Amino acid sequence: MTTQQLTAQIIKKKSFLCIGLDVDLNKIPEHLLQTEDPIFEFNKAIIDATHHLCVAYKPNTAFYEAYGLKGWKALEKTINYLNTNHPDIFTIADAKRGDIGNTSTMYAKAFFEDLAFDSVTVAPYMGKDSVEPFLAFKDKHTIMLALTSNQGAFDFQTKTVEGKELYKHVLETSKSWENSENLMYVVGATKAEYFTDIRKISPNSFLLVPGVGAQGGNLQDVCKYGISDNVGLLINSSRGIIYASNNNDFAEAAAAKAKELQQQMEVILNSK
Amino acid sequence: MTTQQLTAQIIKKKSFLCIGLDVDLNKIPEHLLQTEDPIFEFNKAIIDATHHLCVAYKPNTAFYEAYGLKGWKALEKTINYLNTNHPDIFTIADAKRGDIGNTSTMYAKAFFEDLAFDSVTVAPYMGKDSVEPFLAFKDKHTIMLALTSNQGAFDFQTKTVEGKELYKHVLETSKSWENSENLMYVVGATKAEYFTDIRKISPNSFLLVPGVGAQGGNLQDVCKYGISDNVGLLINSSRGIIYASNNNDFAEAAAAKAKELQQQMEVILNSK
Repeated sequence: MTTQQLTAQIIKKKSFLCIGLDVDLNKIPEHLLQTEDPIFEFNKAIIDATHHLCVAYKPNTAFYEAYGLKGWKALEKTINYLNTNHPDIFTIADAKRGDIGNTSTMYAKAFFEDLAFDSVTVAPYMGKDSVEPFLAFKDKHTIMLALTSNQGAFDFQTKTVEGKELYKHVLETSKSWENSENLMYVVGATKAEYFTDIRKISPNSFLLVPGVGAQGGNLQDVCKYGISDNVGLLINSSRGIIYASNNNDFAEAAAAKAKELQQQMEVILNSK
Repeated sequence: MTTQQLTAQIIKKKSFLCIGLDVDLNKIPEHLLQTEDPIFEFNKAIIDATHHLCVAYKPNTAFYEAYGLKGWKALEKTINYLNTNHPDIFTIADAKRGDIGNTSTMYAKAFFEDLAFDSVTVAPYMGKDSVEPFLAFKDKHTIMLALTSNQGAFDFQTKTVEGKELYKHVLETSKSWENSENLMYVVGATKAEYFTDIRKISPNSFLLVPGVGAQGGNLQDVCKYGISDNVGLLINSSRGIIYASNNNDFAEAAAAKAKELQQQMEVILNSK
């Protein structure tokens, strides 16, 4: 999927919502635990109830790896279900990978070829040659951590390097990498005021924004400073949507929460 | 395994060699491709031929994830084979993970509980609360990236932050984290002269050192500057050992290469 197609989906659905599929077996309705593949059944129900309200789904690989082979199988089934039934939806493997060149190529194959995700999140610490192998997949997108939504973001990301914060240095440096047009960035919603500076460096890149909802970020503030000509935002909510209820009505409750966010987004898009 | 037990193994085996199990199906002997699980069969043959010459094995998860479910299954079989047959060998999941707190906990469960590795590598970019969930597993070890062996290390890791290089800032900062006694660090062999400064910050931490062999690092130089009272080094070689031959004699060839390194290490340990 190209970024133009992604923007077209956003306009069509009046939504730039991404739903995080972070399935914790301790938090899902008990009756699902009796099924053969509770993780996939949970995801399928959430997707069936919410696909018209969002433009992207983002399974975080940690929640699948924690369940070993069964988890990996559920991840495969989830992405296959999305690609088969909702090919217009943008898919993100939230994996935060990054390694030396030949190893990053293997990760890129895992997520872009074997699992056929549209995009994967990567970490910048190992620099250019750890990210370029992902960028080499020209019909895919690489979403690099810039400024994350957790408290630990202040440990290193906001420290001053060569006169600017490290996350800005990361953003600027990455612009010179080969196929950098395939880059998007993770920018946490908990620091909305930072979006002004980020848009100076990267006016139109898509930004994946976690931290709305459970982590306390505010949608209106993020959009005020972060929205671009092509919208350029994917606002993620995970726990706030998928665990809206842990009873039999979990999917309907998730849809209601997603609808709330979609309607706020519609207002923002209409006033743009 | 405690670090004291690891040092005891090093003294006993006269080796601080770690062998990287980075299995690429394009590089292994053709006859193995006919078996049901070529990745595991390759690893088993390498382990059987080299276990007396090394103190650690390090599968890089990228090489397993690239093969999907089959790859994850091969990783499970490999770690089970090691834990069953060679419980004295230190095992490293080279995964370079890192995410917000509740997600890092899921990764820690994946590698420490589900797969039962002794240690896992993590990336520092997201700071304290992305690493502490790993450190909370008190009988396990968390190996954090400090200075990596690739060219991209110079993009961010060696930039100056608050008067010192970022990798030194990462090392120093991590010393204050909860359960930091469970930390080890990745330090690339290609920059042996940096070990002097690193040992000033972290005199006795174990350092996992990639970059000897295929990436051009020199064993003697690393030991000259990096060896500590408790040895404190795990020198990793992956491609240089496991792909020493791609014929039927691949395991013997790997053992011969491992033996070469072990003998150099024996000389170093004897002169210590």
